[in-house]
Amino acid sequence: MNTAAEIDTLIASNHTGLSKESLMELIEAVAAAPYRPDEDNTLRHVLPNLSPEQITSVKMVRDAYRDRIEKIVLSPENSTTRLAALRAKMIAENADGFIVPLNDEYHGEAAPACSERLKWLTGFTGSAGVAGVLKDKAAIFVDGRYTLQVVNEVDTSLFQPRHVSDEPMFAWIEENMASGQTLAIDPWLHTESSVNAFKQLTKRLGISLKETETNLIDDVWTDRPQPPLAMVVPHTDMFSGETSRDKRTAIAATLQGSAVDASIHTLPDVNAWLLNIRGADLPCTPFALGFGILHKDATVDLYMDERKLSPELSEHLGNSVRLFNPDQFHEGLTSLNGKSVQIDPSTTSQWIVNKLTSAQAKIIRADDPCLLPKATKNATEVAGTRSAHIRDGAAVTKFLHWLSLNAASGSVDEISAEAQLREFRKTGDKFKDLSFPTISAAGPNGALCHYRSTDASNRKLETGTLYLVDSGGQYLDGTTDITRTIAVGEPTEEMRQRFTLVLKGHIALATARFPKGTTGSQLDTLARAPLWAAGLDYDHGTGHGVGSYLSVHEGPQRISKMPNSIALQPGMIISNEPGYYKANDYGIRIENLVTVYEVDGLKNAELTTYGFETLTFAPLDQNLIETSLLTTEELQWVNSYHQSVWNKISPLVSRDVKDWLQSATTSI
Amino acid sequence: MNTAAEIDTLIASNHTGLSKESLMELIEAVAAAPYRPDEDNTLRHVLPNLSPEQITSVKMVRDAYRDRIEKIVLSPENSTTRLAALRAKMIAENADGFIVPLNDEYHGEAAPACSERLKWLTGFTGSAGVAGVLKDKAAIFVDGRYTLQVVNEVDTSLFQPRHVSDEPMFAWIEENMASGQTLAIDPWLHTESSVNAFKQLTKRLGISLKETETNLIDDVWTDRPQPPLAMVVPHTDMFSGETSRDKRTAIAATLQGSAVDASIHTLPDVNAWLLNIRGADLPCTPFALGFGILHKDATVDLYMDERKLSPELSEHLGNSVRLFNPDQFHEGLTSLNGKSVQIDPSTTSQWIVNKLTSAQAKIIRADDPCLLPKATKNATEVAGTRSAHIRDGAAVTKFLHWLSLNAASGSVDEISAEAQLREFRKTGDKFKDLSFPTISAAGPNGALCHYRSTDASNRKLETGTLYLVDSGGQYLDGTTDITRTIAVGEPTEEMRQRFTLVLKGHIALATARFPKGTTGSQLDTLARAPLWAAGLDYDHGTGHGVGSYLSVHEGPQRISKMPNSIALQPGMIISNEPGYYKANDYGIRIENLVTVYEVDGLKNAELTTYGFETLTFAPLDQNLIETSLLTTEELQWVNSYHQSVWNKISPLVSRDVKDWLQSATTSI
Repeated sequence: MNTAAEIDTLIASNHTGLSKESLMELIEAVAAAPYRPDEDNTLRHVLPNLSPEQITSVKMVRDAYRDRIEKIVLSPENSTTRLAALRAKMIAENADGFIVPLNDEYHGEAAPACSERLKWLTGFTGSAGVAGVLKDKAAIFVDGRYTLQVVNEVDTSLFQPRHVSDEPMFAWIEENMASGQTLAIDPWLHTESSVNAFKQLTKRLGISLKETETNLIDDVWTDRPQPPLAMVVPHTDMFSGETSRDKRTAIAATLQGSAVDASIHTLPDVNAWLLNIRGADLPCTPFALGFGILHKDATVDLYMDERKLSPELSEHLGNSVRLFNPDQFHEGLTSLNGKSVQIDPSTTSQWIVNKLTSAQAKIIRADDPCLLPKATKNATEVAGTRSAHIRDGAAVTKFLHWLSLNAASGSVDEISAEAQLREFRKTGDKFKDLSFPTISAAGPNGALCHYRSTDASNRKLETGTLYLVDSGGQYLDGTTDITRTIAVGEPTEEMRQRFTLVLKGHIALATARFPKGTTGSQLDTLARAPLWAAGLDYDHGTGHGVGSYLSVHEGPQRISKMPNSIALQPGMIISNEPGYYKANDYGIRIENLVTVYEVDGLKNAELTTYGFETLTFAPLDQNLIETSLLTTEELQWVNSYHQSVWNKISPLVSRDVKDWLQSATTSI
Repeated sequence: MNTAAEIDTLIASNHTGLSKESLMELIEAVAAAPYRPDEDNTLRHVLPNLSPEQITSVKMVRDAYRDRIEKIVLSPENSTTRLAALRAKMIAENADGFIVPLNDEYHGEAAPACSERLKWLTGFTGSAGVAGVLKDKAAIFVDGRYTLQVVNEVDTSLFQPRHVSDEPMFAWIEENMASGQTLAIDPWLHTESSVNAFKQLTKRLGISLKETETNLIDDVWTDRPQPPLAMVVPHTDMFSGETSRDKRTAIAATLQGSAVDASIHTLPDVNAWLLNIRGADLPCTPFALGFGILHKDATVDLYMDERKLSPELSEHLGNSVRLFNPDQFHEGLTSLNGKSVQIDPSTTSQWIVNKLTSAQAKIIRADDPCLLPKATKNATEVAGTRSAHIRDGAAVTKFLHWLSLNAASGSVDEISAEAQLREFRKTGDKFKDLSFPTISAAGPNGALCHYRSTDASNRKLETGTLYLVDSGGQYLDGTTDITRTIAVGEPTEEMRQRFTLVLKGHIALATARFPKGTTGSQLDTLARAPLWAAGLDYDHGTGHGVGSYLSVHEGPQRISKMPNSIALQPGMIISNEPGYYKANDYGIRIENLVTVYEVDGLKNAELTTYGFETLTFAPLDQNLIETSLLTTEELQWVNSYHQSVWNKISPLVSRDVKDWLQSATTSI
């Protein structure tokens, strides 16, 4: 396709009222938002005067650009020239060092293509990492999950790979920078907490810390993508269970209680929750990137690309939410002159802190007051997620049935299995997107906890191996996340033993009861104890919070070895996902989502006691269960769980799937 | 007895070479050390020239004074005049406020009578608390264990009782002190961490923080006891398993590794461990109070009352340990001019930090480097503690047998039972002292976790109630701590159910296996889960570290809900003591000590795996076990444990005890 010709035709038709350059920018911004079934709405909104033929042309241009974006960002073969350009810019800016973090200015879990500066510079595609660039050397710091991957992806003659804990960045700076030199950082990309750490380090070393006006990479990244542009839609009360007004009023009351005039919110999930809106700026999470200022009178100033906002959305937001373009955010912060303004130092950009400081605002530092209410789902959200999980369970069940027919044939590989699973999910009511890229891992790939299939890594499902599939969906009424491990053919005795140990841990957590005030850290060991007894363990957390048609990973609660001070509360949704990984051989993980509820009618109980209600329903592979290792109670749990799976899922599937499900859920 | 006349006679005999005042001071110092069977050695050492008759006179004087000490310190009826005297002193010192903490300048777990300033001022006898005194009001801050007790002990018209967390001292200072006022503290009694918090508070409030030269209470406490004076003895390598030289060399190597010239040690258990010495300055713990400076060349400057040190001890210490009197400590710190000196800010007096600062020493802040090696017992210490526990178990078994004969008769009360238990222990080989005041708690008193019998609270053991006894011994080869709960007559079904839930938690912890790197916080839930499932819990930690013929409570490891970052390591000794307390009715606790060991020969294990070896051997009351609530494995643990009790204890007890023990340990 000749993109240039299509554009020229559009411009010639002169319906858009835009220059060629502006039109191209607009289309590229739309393309920078990930594909979603309803994305054509965005085009119709931002280019309202086009004919159907012209829209078709624009879509072709959009799709052609979208196909190129990944390549624009990720081209490690260009790291040498990119690094040279950055260094030239550093010299021009009198910077001896520059830090390239992975996050964007919103400090959420994921970032759009325009913010993938670390990937652009180094080629590293992992979900956590940071690079340090000096005039004569550079290094990339990653955690244990990525120490192997980084070597494959990054030109290590340019970037020395280092383990972020064992060989931390600060030690590297200390080794390689001299007193009197200047270290530059982009204050948008570092939180106040992070900058404070840099300040301490550089003060100790006699280094100047310079906060740049612009990002030095942006200055040299000439074909940097546009920020994503996708329509924002209301998240109706039918799904949210609480109006934005009620949420804003409740949070504002906490601000008033602390004599705070306003609080700043940049986390995309916080703004989505607070305003009951959903967007499509990022893959797998319905975020609309923007900045919010919540005032103590419960009104919000929302700084968001106005092209994303339909009249319908403005009506939904009402006149208590004032809309501004992002470039007015600086002005909005300045207008807080002399006010008490609350920020969360662990998620708020230093840039914002600087502007508030200049405005002589009194900065109050506290945890984001929306995090806990957002994590604690109301009855509507819990009911919605129950419903979404049953539909999702039906899709997974269809997939497991399909696997049972096809896996042993040797014709299924990771990528085709993943595609098939997506097909089953896509037909589900209220389905919008996957909630994260599916982990479809055959044999030894299953031992890589955060594996993602590529053409190079793709493996066939082979008899005598395990297949691990970790996937989830975004539904209007809830977010799902489920992992099943399937034996292809006959599993070995060791596989059965290990799977059963993981299952024992899963059951221990699923059936745990605990007093009000208990944290996830306190429960983590229950899921590990059976593996520990055999001298085994898994090197990841046991449970992460999950949003309500929001991010599949959310805090503040967590079940892990790491201390976490957040008490579990009714309505919180969290994953229960112990595992076991045998390097170069196989991986096992059993993941259901659960929600915390208060146990009623516990005889002679002295304490308010909570338990977990399992939300996920899809069969566990009974071929992998070694019943002799289970206690009577554990066996009862398996049978009772499978009875529930049958009851909830069988009405939603066809005859042949039902027949298979009946045998898959039969009592053992 | 006429003490004055005895003294006059002694002086007249003119053998001591001391003035009457000096002699009296000396005797009072000896009296200030707690009673120990071998304490006459101290008298013979400090008054070597006396005839047996004169020694007898001195002992009478000593014992008469000792009987008075408690009354000298504790007389709440004098709080009004004591408080008035303190306030007069505060005015003279231009102080608007003064803080009275409970600890002494060594910041160990317990303090001698001369340092019981809080008790002297307020009458409060608990183990944790602090008072704030202003010119017109005063308050005492205690934790949840003591909110009832403080009201009974303290004149609340003088000292307002406040909950230390709900109504903290800093908030009280903020409410009641004004900008421009002066708050005084004794820098000896506050650690650097604590003073830093005071500095932040007073700076924010515009209050001057004044560090006093002397303690304002000492200035008005005219009959304040002498610091205790008791002989220090070598703790031989036969028990310590490692020479002081080797310990000093190892710790000094860590200092050298951090380019540190010296470290300061005031914790009594640290100095006892490092120098392989034991003293008798405090009840139940063989501490010798003093200050130590460890140099990077592995030599130590020890600042300790020279009258405590025999020639035999000097020989034991060797010429790498230089002895100084405590009043030379200031000079010692000053001589560290320009050196790098390590302190632990959580246990080092601000006074010491001030002197080091004046000396222009470079202060390095780190955890006390002796804590972890001290907690990690060597093979000799573990073998010693095993042996001590068997002898201690025999004493407890004799006591349980005695109870079985006498409890139901109604003739036994808490105090007589406690005395009887002490009698059984006293005869044990290498027994030196109790390791803490026995908790002998009948019926509802058992529900008070930190109960201590008094004449007023003393209760008879009655049929249909539970008796809880928590006690331990100090043996030359180890320190013990054991709790048993006994049904007097027939227990109720509820008592049996609750005891069995506690037992299930105890067994879960006793049998836990866990990978290297696991902390006590991670294991705590295992001991609570069975109670939690019934809506119950206990409001104390599950396990504390225990010393080797040292303090019965030691860190840094701990098993509790509170996050603790210290990984459990082989050789650590820790208690396993879940419980259940029904207010006004009964208390249940099952406590054994355990030591961490590395599990060998675990088939197919991938990780270094640790487990607990139970050290304590005495029967559990099988009348309280509801076997239907135990799993097969739990029942096996009970029977196997009782088999071990029988094997280890039966050879040490007489025929009648043995007969009882056989039935008490029979399989169920």
